[in-house]
Amino acid sequence: MHPNYRGQFQTAVDQVRSEGRYRVFQDIRRKRGAFPKAIWYPNEQTQRDIVVWCSNDYLGQGQNPCVMEAVKSAVDATGTGSGGTRNISGTTHYHVQLERELASLHQKDRSLIFTSGYVANEATLSVMSRILPGLIIFSDALNHASMIAGIRGARCEKQIFRHNDVAHLRELLAAADPSAPKLIAFESVYSMDADIAPIEAICDLAEEFGAMTYCDEVHAVGMYGPEGSGLCGQLGLMDRIDIIQGTLAKAYGMIGGYIAADSIIVDAVRSLASGFIFTTSIPPSTAAGALRSVRYLKQSGDVRTRHQDRAAALKARFRAADLPFIDGPTHIVPLLIGDPVRCKAISDYLIEVHGLYVQPINYPTVPKGTERLRFTPSPFHTEAMMDELLQALLDAWSHFDMADTSQGQTTKHAS
Amino acid sequence: MHPNYRGQFQTAVDQVRSEGRYRVFQDIRRKRGAFPKAIWYPNEQTQRDIVVWCSNDYLGQGQNPCVMEAVKSAVDATGTGSGGTRNISGTTHYHVQLERELASLHQKDRSLIFTSGYVANEATLSVMSRILPGLIIFSDALNHASMIAGIRGARCEKQIFRHNDVAHLRELLAAADPSAPKLIAFESVYSMDADIAPIEAICDLAEEFGAMTYCDEVHAVGMYGPEGSGLCGQLGLMDRIDIIQGTLAKAYGMIGGYIAADSIIVDAVRSLASGFIFTTSIPPSTAAGALRSVRYLKQSGDVRTRHQDRAAALKARFRAADLPFIDGPTHIVPLLIGDPVRCKAISDYLIEVHGLYVQPINYPTVPKGTERLRFTPSPFHTEAMMDELLQALLDAWSHFDMADTSQGQTTKHAS
Ligand SMILES: Cc1ncc(COP(=O)(O)O)c(C=O)c1O
Ligand SMILES: Cc1ncc(COP(=O)(O)O)c(C=O)c1O
Repeated sequence: MHPNYRGQFQTAVDQVRSEGRYRVFQDIRRKRGAFPKAIWYPNEQTQRDIVVWCSNDYLGQGQNPCVMEAVKSAVDATGTGSGGTRNISGTTHYHVQLERELASLHQKDRSLIFTSGYVANEATLSVMSRILPGLIIFSDALNHASMIAGIRGARCEKQIFRHNDVAHLRELLAAADPSAPKLIAFESVYSMDADIAPIEAICDLAEEFGAMTYCDEVHAVGMYGPEGSGLCGQLGLMDRIDIIQGTLAKAYGMIGGYIAADSIIVDAVRSLASGFIFTTSIPPSTAAGALRSVRYLKQSGDVRTRHQDRAAALKARFRAADLPFIDGPTHIVPLLIGDPVRCKAISDYLIEVHGLYVQPINYPTVPKGTERLRFTPSPFHTEAMMDELLQALLDAWSHFDMADTSQGQTTKHAS
Repeated sequence: MHPNYRGQFQTAVDQVRSEGRYRVFQDIRRKRGAFPKAIWYPNEQTQRDIVVWCSNDYLGQGQNPCVMEAVKSAVDATGTGSGGTRNISGTTHYHVQLERELASLHQKDRSLIFTSGYVANEATLSVMSRILPGLIIFSDALNHASMIAGIRGARCEKQIFRHNDVAHLRELLAAADPSAPKLIAFESVYSMDADIAPIEAICDLAEEFGAMTYCDEVHAVGMYGPEGSGLCGQLGLMDRIDIIQGTLAKAYGMIGGYIAADSIIVDAVRSLASGFIFTTSIPPSTAAGALRSVRYLKQSGDVRTRHQDRAAALKARFRAADLPFIDGPTHIVPLLIGDPVRCKAISDYLIEVHGLYVQPINYPTVPKGTERLRFTPSPFHTEAMMDELLQALLDAWSHFDMADTSQGQTTKHAS
């Protein structure tokens, strides 16, 4: 490589580092049957027991014996990879069954699996402007990077509305060409802020201005609504969302993503979206595990209840200790630190001194100045674990002199 | 959904249909231990035995007992999904080990895993122009859709050189601003045309004009070179390629993709590429299976020999029967049909009448007028299977009156 190039790559990395947002991946290994416990490898020579507080395997489904069994028996029946794109020998009976199940979960005609939730968003949104020439996409300011990538890929007009601000959305819709096709893209649960979208008001606006609706339910499917169909399901609004997008990688404990929609929408995306067409399909065993997980969570209202209960228990502790967390209506508990270097230092302190793992969340995942530790209590985080966490946090708070900086910062919204 | 929208989605699908390229996914289920045999579900009521002739599980590694075992024991040890993005609890010891192995395979400092080969290309190429301002990307005209998506995402100047045409590439390089950073992106094996790139000549040009080199080895890793390091490995050119990209989903029988490169390149991509950062990492068991598969193929020169031998045997039969196939130097055997409707009809005939599955390959995967059936003989396709296939093809040839149209079309290159 020419030395000039090397220098430029170095500059790019230095820039990230100078902003205090150079990522260090913690090397861990979860212990099956001991969720949320894991082994941490701080280096090649050392292994330490830790408790994971930041997993998005929100319900521990990745260690549910019936899900693991479904994966293993599909491997036994059919092997590992699918061996092809969906079109070229990579559509298996497992994929067909899973797509049917996901469609039924969301009460839609049809669904379509992608290799990830990221790709589902990017591929689907990218292709919308080809199908709907002149399209304007109205996008919530805090939408996930994968939606932003899709909207960028669509190369059509976009209008950003302030986070969850329906008045602003109305303004933008009213100002737009009435004859232009429109799509409103938003999330149901915003995972970094622990808040939820005003879904019904957005649907009302969509109806009034003749817009389509696209809702990312990545942090809600499996966890909200009857049968785990998500927040739109909980609110009885699924039929007012044209395209529901979800992941198999969080509450369902596997990997992969999907959309559910009318037949004709799915058929068009299936036929045109590059990110769907030109890639190997998910392994049959992944589809089998996801199918089992979706079915399990359809019937497990008690897991959802316990999940919310655990989140409430953690929030109660943080509240009592006057810690500056975002007190939202969801299962996610973000603790604001407000500085990337300190955020990483506290995270390092917690894992090194207390064996508690919570990753620092810095820019660009969240806006600068709102750096945070994001806790995801699961149904398997016990009272004792919560007590332990609180003590460790109070210790870190005094160790890093956080008392002054954080006073009175508890807030409903981070942005 | 507003009726206007429905109409536009319908129009998009009708358009695809009218071009004869509406895709019908065959619903199949492979039988472990009986590779390349599978079950075909033409509809919900029916199951039929078939032989698969179009899988990209080129070496049958998806059914290699040691690979299956590695997947299953990782599921037992650690559960199914990773539960997080690479940064947020989704880097496991399995990922760390696999990245080390892939780096060593390609004799590079470091490697980086993505959720797919598609995402590896798209995410890496997209971010290059941010790291190298003013970048010009020189791209082979037949590069895969995922590279095109990445180059499109980079939003920098691009120059397309005619497929494998080094004279044209030289012209374009010579005409470009000498001070601009440059990157040449190409594949080692072009999977739809069965041909290979003039890799050494491209590296020479890169050196002469101070360009970086990016090589997609998706259809070569595991299958070529000592230890399966790919075509660049076979030709002793790995050190002249700055970024080698590969997949775990084809010869390795799993899913996922990667790049291997200098430390600083990998660190920059890792730190900046949206498609790498904002998505759940591959399951630990996927990494474990891939690791086992890579190690297995490192030591299995005989599998590679048998693979080439089987491809040669099929080509010999096609040659003797005067079938219009592309007689290239690789393991892929494309049979030219030249019309999308007929291509699909012959494929349907082969599976329905003969139980032989080879998917039609139509536009936009290949240029219009070069529609084809693409055969991928594996080490497990027997002589008897080849005889059966030939008879079936000759039957189809006369059934569809192909003799006239195809005379003398055997060619070295499809494009
Ligand atoms: C809102 C949102 N959408 C999509 C994704 C991507 O989903 P996946 O991890 O399945 O790629 C994520 C996070 O990973 C997310 O937070
Ligand atoms: C040349 C090439 N690059 C990349 C890809 C994408 O790899 P993956 O299937 O792992 O997404 C493919 C095919 O799928 C391909 O043919």
